[in-house]
Amino acid sequence: MSAIAAPLKKTLNVALIQLSAGFDKAKNLNHFKTHILKAIGESKNKLDLVVLPECFNSPYSVSEFRNYAETIPDGETTQFLSAIAKEHQIFLVGGSIPELDKTNDKIYNTSVTFDPQGKIVGKHRKAHLFDIDIKGGITFKESITLTGGDKATVYDLDGFGKVGLGICYDIRFPELAQIAARSPNDSFAMIYPGAFNTTTGPLHWHLLARARAIDNQIYTIVCSPARDLNSGYHAYGHSLVVDPYGKIIAEAGEGEEIVYAQLDPELITKVRQGIPINYQRRFDIYNNVVDGATVSDV
Amino acid sequence: MSAIAAPLKKTLNVALIQLSAGFDKAKNLNHFKTHILKAIGESKNKLDLVVLPECFNSPYSVSEFRNYAETIPDGETTQFLSAIAKEHQIFLVGGSIPELDKTNDKIYNTSVTFDPQGKIVGKHRKAHLFDIDIKGGITFKESITLTGGDKATVYDLDGFGKVGLGICYDIRFPELAQIAARSPNDSFAMIYPGAFNTTTGPLHWHLLARARAIDNQIYTIVCSPARDLNSGYHAYGHSLVVDPYGKIIAEAGEGEEIVYAQLDPELITKVRQGIPINYQRRFDIYNNVVDGATVSDV
Repeated sequence: MSAIAAPLKKTLNVALIQLSAGFDKAKNLNHFKTHILKAIGESKNKLDLVVLPECFNSPYSVSEFRNYAETIPDGETTQFLSAIAKEHQIFLVGGSIPELDKTNDKIYNTSVTFDPQGKIVGKHRKAHLFDIDIKGGITFKESITLTGGDKATVYDLDGFGKVGLGICYDIRFPELAQIAARSPNDSFAMIYPGAFNTTTGPLHWHLLARARAIDNQIYTIVCSPARDLNSGYHAYGHSLVVDPYGKIIAEAGEGEEIVYAQLDPELITKVRQGIPINYQRRFDIYNNVVDGATVSDV
Repeated sequence: MSAIAAPLKKTLNVALIQLSAGFDKAKNLNHFKTHILKAIGESKNKLDLVVLPECFNSPYSVSEFRNYAETIPDGETTQFLSAIAKEHQIFLVGGSIPELDKTNDKIYNTSVTFDPQGKIVGKHRKAHLFDIDIKGGITFKESITLTGGDKATVYDLDGFGKVGLGICYDIRFPELAQIAARSPNDSFAMIYPGAFNTTTGPLHWHLLARARAIDNQIYTIVCSPARDLNSGYHAYGHSLVVDPYGKIIAEAGEGEEIVYAQLDPELITKVRQGIPINYQRRFDIYNNVVDGATVSDV
């Protein structure tokens, strides 16, 4: 089994910052900065990666996306996060923010990842927009004001290996994780900043995160906003880290909280040696979804 | 949302027969017949479908598969099941048996489904062979004596709609369920006769069944042998029926047991209206795995 590549090259220490966001953008940014610094200070291991939730700088609201939208990379939030990543020498997954693309005047739900030099190493525009209508539960239609991205996203965290990234509702579509995990992309994790709610969260949040992990034998990291019952959207919370066996190794509650996990390179190899689905897929019966997929690295 | 097709045309009542099997084939067959009749007799609703577990007529053992193998359709077990289906006018998923193909002298792990006239309407040869090696857990290598099938399997239960079928380890490969569930196949359920064990069962049995259900918004039916600690292979038990929300609606324990469930056509439609992933997949970013797949209906 020496042919099993090690997609994660060394131990990675991650923190997930589960906070809520209100209407005051400057206050939101500073609230997150305070807690990123807190995580760096209180982590028992030197932090390599910090992950923020979906729409962390503004309210999650169809009517507010354009009001809060910024250009990337020159917008305020992108510059703010880049400076934090550089100053503290961490990889930083900047949750997501509403992005204005001036070339077409469209708004996207976009996640940007920074390396320890503050450079953008990954950018994903939410590909599957959250348009649902559960009677007696929740109705939401992102597509009223947002446009979906047109790529799957895989990028390198230099020194550790590659990750795939999706945003929230993207997790319901197994293809993005399959594309990221399979050769030649060979990611060690899928990261999903995501704001499930009090209807879909209890139904599917843990199940989807665990399904992506075991079907692809990778880590799954899902980072939610904290629940704020005074806001118009009640996020589920329960930010999670799931290991390649599908086991939850870190979980937040509903409120504001930081959770920590350590990702183990040897566990991925061990899982894949034990249950070698990577070498047993039957691409003579069905096509490999990674073939022909549109993948962006920045 | 009137465009949502109803893959299940009417309510379907199913029973899963969770029993163990030993070395005496005639005894195994009669043990199952007794319990199929018991299920028909004690079900509060008229049974439409009965499902048996993997390798129900013989020991689950690499060294025994050839000794117990039969040809299909003229072999003893196939004739036996056909007669039961016809006499009691039920659809019967005949778990799986070791099949000898005389044209190439190979052995397959094969599931045959009969309609209420006793006719074969579906046949699946396990496509993904169970070759695993979990240290301190379980080592098993079906490929020593078995050959894998070369098709995904979808077939019609006349009057109800279509189902897809995989066998045990096939459940780890999401493609078979995706192929069955998506248009033009439009199955309402995946059925997996399967014998997980006391290592992989607690890890993944429920999770895999639920993942296939929610990712495809179909029912999942997984039928295991009962656990027999005197046999060489310790089956997990816990036969399950999972609804399209991913909720477990019927579950057996570890021992010999019959479980019943009722499949509701309206629930599939409701789930798909609420969370319309069927219409939101991004086949501009990635290919649809149903395209180009090799699918057999008998």
